[in-house]
Amino acid sequence: MGTLMSQAFVSEILGTAMLILLGAGVVANVILPGTKGFGGGWLLINFGWGLAVFAGVFTAFKSGAHLNPAVTIGLLTADQPFATKTGPDDMVTVTIEPTVGNAFWYILAQLIGAFIGAVLAWMAYKKHFDQEAEPGIKLAVFSTGPALRSYAWNFVTEVIATFVLVFVVLAFGPTPSGLGPLAVALLVVGIGASLGGPTGYAINPARDLAPRIAHAVLPIPNKGGGDWSYAWVPVLGPLVGGVLAGLLANVYIF
Amino acid sequence: MGTLMSQAFVSEILGTAMLILLGAGVVANVILPGTKGFGGGWLLINFGWGLAVFAGVFTAFKSGAHLNPAVTIGLLTADQPFATKTGPDDMVTVTIEPTVGNAFWYILAQLIGAFIGAVLAWMAYKKHFDQEAEPGIKLAVFSTGPALRSYAWNFVTEVIATFVLVFVVLAFGPTPSGLGPLAVALLVVGIGASLGGPTGYAINPARDLAPRIAHAVLPIPNKGGGDWSYAWVPVLGPLVGGVLAGLLANVYIF
Amino acid sequence: MGTLMSQAFVSEILGTAMLILLGAGVVANVILPGTKGFGGGWLLINFGWGLAVFAGVFTAFKSGAHLNPAVTIGLLTADQPFATKTGPDDMVTVTIEPTVGNAFWYILAQLIGAFIGAVLAWMAYKKHFDQEAEPGIKLAVFSTGPALRSYAWNFVTEVIATFVLVFVVLAFGPTPSGLGPLAVALLVVGIGASLGGPTGYAINPARDLAPRIAHAVLPIPNKGGGDWSYAWVPVLGPLVGGVLAGLLANVYIF
Amino acid sequence: MGTLMSQAFVSEILGTAMLILLGAGVVANVILPGTKGFGGGWLLINFGWGLAVFAGVFTAFKSGAHLNPAVTIGLLTADQPFATKTGPDDMVTVTIEPTVGNAFWYILAQLIGAFIGAVLAWMAYKKHFDQEAEPGIKLAVFSTGPALRSYAWNFVTEVIATFVLVFVVLAFGPTPSGLGPLAVALLVVGIGASLGGPTGYAINPARDLAPRIAHAVLPIPNKGGGDWSYAWVPVLGPLVGGVLAGLLANVYIF
Repeated sequence: MGTLMSQAFVSEILGTAMLILLGAGVVANVILPGTKGFGGGWLLINFGWGLAVFAGVFTAFKSGAHLNPAVTIGLLTADQPFATKTGPDDMVTVTIEPTVGNAFWYILAQLIGAFIGAVLAWMAYKKHFDQEAEPGIKLAVFSTGPALRSYAWNFVTEVIATFVLVFVVLAFGPTPSGLGPLAVALLVVGIGASLGGPTGYAINPARDLAPRIAHAVLPIPNKGGGDWSYAWVPVLGPLVGGVLAGLLANVYIF
Repeated sequence: MGTLMSQAFVSEILGTAMLILLGAGVVANVILPGTKGFGGGWLLINFGWGLAVFAGVFTAFKSGAHLNPAVTIGLLTADQPFATKTGPDDMVTVTIEPTVGNAFWYILAQLIGAFIGAVLAWMAYKKHFDQEAEPGIKLAVFSTGPALRSYAWNFVTEVIATFVLVFVVLAFGPTPSGLGPLAVALLVVGIGASLGGPTGYAINPARDLAPRIAHAVLPIPNKGGGDWSYAWVPVLGPLVGGVLAGLLANVYIF
Repeated sequence: MGTLMSQAFVSEILGTAMLILLGAGVVANVILPGTKGFGGGWLLINFGWGLAVFAGVFTAFKSGAHLNPAVTIGLLTADQPFATKTGPDDMVTVTIEPTVGNAFWYILAQLIGAFIGAVLAWMAYKKHFDQEAEPGIKLAVFSTGPALRSYAWNFVTEVIATFVLVFVVLAFGPTPSGLGPLAVALLVVGIGASLGGPTGYAINPARDLAPRIAHAVLPIPNKGGGDWSYAWVPVLGPLVGGVLAGLLANVYIF
Repeated sequence: MGTLMSQAFVSEILGTAMLILLGAGVVANVILPGTKGFGGGWLLINFGWGLAVFAGVFTAFKSGAHLNPAVTIGLLTADQPFATKTGPDDMVTVTIEPTVGNAFWYILAQLIGAFIGAVLAWMAYKKHFDQEAEPGIKLAVFSTGPALRSYAWNFVTEVIATFVLVFVVLAFGPTPSGLGPLAVALLVVGIGASLGGPTGYAINPARDLAPRIAHAVLPIPNKGGGDWSYAWVPVLGPLVGGVLAGLLANVYIF
């Protein structure tokens, strides 16, 4: 790893930790017993996750803020730079090239960051995790689960929702706006509102897998199993969605 | 069709598909049985549709992102370019002229895109459409219906709401902001919140008609009729609203 | 009236009409029987009014978009231009000077516009106004009323809330952002959320008085009285708040 | 105190007063009996506080708008300027250096401003404070309290939440956007949504302590005690979070 990739590695860890701290946090706030936001509703969850992305993107300013293996794979498929730097005179330099090796480091960092974020969210809500509650509720703070279980159709939903995420992120380029990280934050609010109904919109393998591991490891009383038979859906679905978005972007955008 | 119009044709298809996928999606999430957003409320629907426009506008960056025959007709009435390109030195070139022929292609693309979007939304919510539910609920994911049926007054409501949409979009020009696609997204959130109460704010003939056709075609169990006697209201109302907005804009804005 | 003031006059009429159409509209949607947004909650009302301002400001681009006598009086007190024009090289020219005469025309236009907007909102919700409902509900679509009646304290609340509106609008100048009309829209969302609880945040004499007159005039079945004994509070309170904001701005901002 | 520090002192007073007026206001609106926003939910509170920050930042344009001792201490730890001025040619001049002496004045101003804001919020909701209500409800308008009391874990939650606030604010620098004060407003919405569940997110010693004093002083009928045994948590937790953010920022950002 060169210096720039090392910095990007740390950046993805910090950014994804921020993402999952706030993302798991809002779910904890809405579904764990006794919190101030208990029963706050789906829109609260959508804004919480969207603004988790917002904070995560500002945090990960050295790595292009992928925060998501599906984004990394999508950029790889579309052969777009992983990170760039804008100098004086608006000259853009590619700092991290889209290679399989770099993608490996990005995804590893995202998994590490997501694990850390999940632990921090657990710490922030420690006393509420210690309360009596249905085990499935405690798992749901960490990982997604289907509203109606159907591996095939749940997979389809995750593919479609992640396709929207990665494709529209790739389409941000041609339409300049002053929104910065707000654009992707709002996109994630919208995906959650519109496509989160059947599976809880993982749309990010790291967001689902690493917190599921954290759930297995952490000393949470009465926590139940990790629903591992479902765990492949929010990993593989988003990866396929990201690849499809990269392929269409190759034809339509770049 | 020249090259630019061909590109715009594809752009309108993709953008309108994105709009309807997310727009029908949020309605599905709020009203279909068993979803995670079930009963999430009107503001959730408003944000879902607004952010559907947001994603759709970024997607349709080659065509000026009309996504709506009422917008196309409004621009035609106001004799404003359908699409422009900004080069270096901020020089703006018109890429698609506002002609009846081009309007035809735009509207055709919007109908095709809206149909595709409706099919994708159905796929994302497949298992929830298969659940027992009142047939009217299933139709309401695809198309609008009146809260209190009155063809005349429902028509008036759609005219007023679409007038607001098209007129304010035309008024974006003189007030530069860094909001980009967020401006129209927020406008649609506002129209939904304020004027969506009586008819569910179609404000877009393609948004209503093409999904209604998709509803007729798709293999949805226990789906009931398409309420075709109402179908002209969300087509004609928005077109009239768009024309009125174009006319007033001719006098006041341009 | 010179040409620029004539244009501003029309601009204030159109913008205030847009404001009240969408503002009264969201209240109608939340409180009138049978609408799709019925019972949608306070945040829905806050966003509806905020985005009503958003649309109104874009509409009133020729007059500086006061849309509110309290803003006009505040600018007059602070001796700030009513409207400006930015030419090439970012040169700003004052187009409307802050004089008592111009203030008169602005306020007249705002009252006319607010009346028109109220009529349009009534048209959009015609069938819902025709439904059986408590008369106070129907009035509340048009004009504000206190949660707990106390002329003195209701007045204080309106003074404070309008002071916040006008003072922060005057403070926008020194902090450039790319938000454009979104800044004032969000400010109004915030004022509604935070200070709307006791009186329903008129914070604008035209917004309250002209729709109250429209309510008196329109053929609404079973509409009851206009609560005219309260009508001075949402007129005088905002005017005093606007003057206080202008005075403090003179010392602190300009 | 030099002239610039005197101006910053007034600026912090005004900005923090604005913050607390609107922040305490939204809580009053949601929890005091008889208000229009009663029972409006957690997202309403989150937006209210976020937009309170928005208004406060515009107001405090002469002091860099800390509005929060944790931000001041974080900047001091990271050795970043307290306030800057951008001249023509985008030349940035530091106007207030990050010294312990200046930090003292900032924090004093924040405490004074927060006290004034709390008094104004009480005035705006005077008649609702006079209503019968559980004493804890009346205190909760002014100061935070834990959902589940545990000084250690409540402290941890405040440290984590404030760390997020200060660290992401420090990370705004490298990612330019046109959002201006909206960025920190949205960040605060997100922190409230995600991390406000256990303690009500003080994340600001002045926001909690000064209103708690106001609560003790003001003539509120049947107000009960000030829960002073908890008062150190929302003071010390945010200060520690701010220092940790400054330390990590020293390594990662600057």
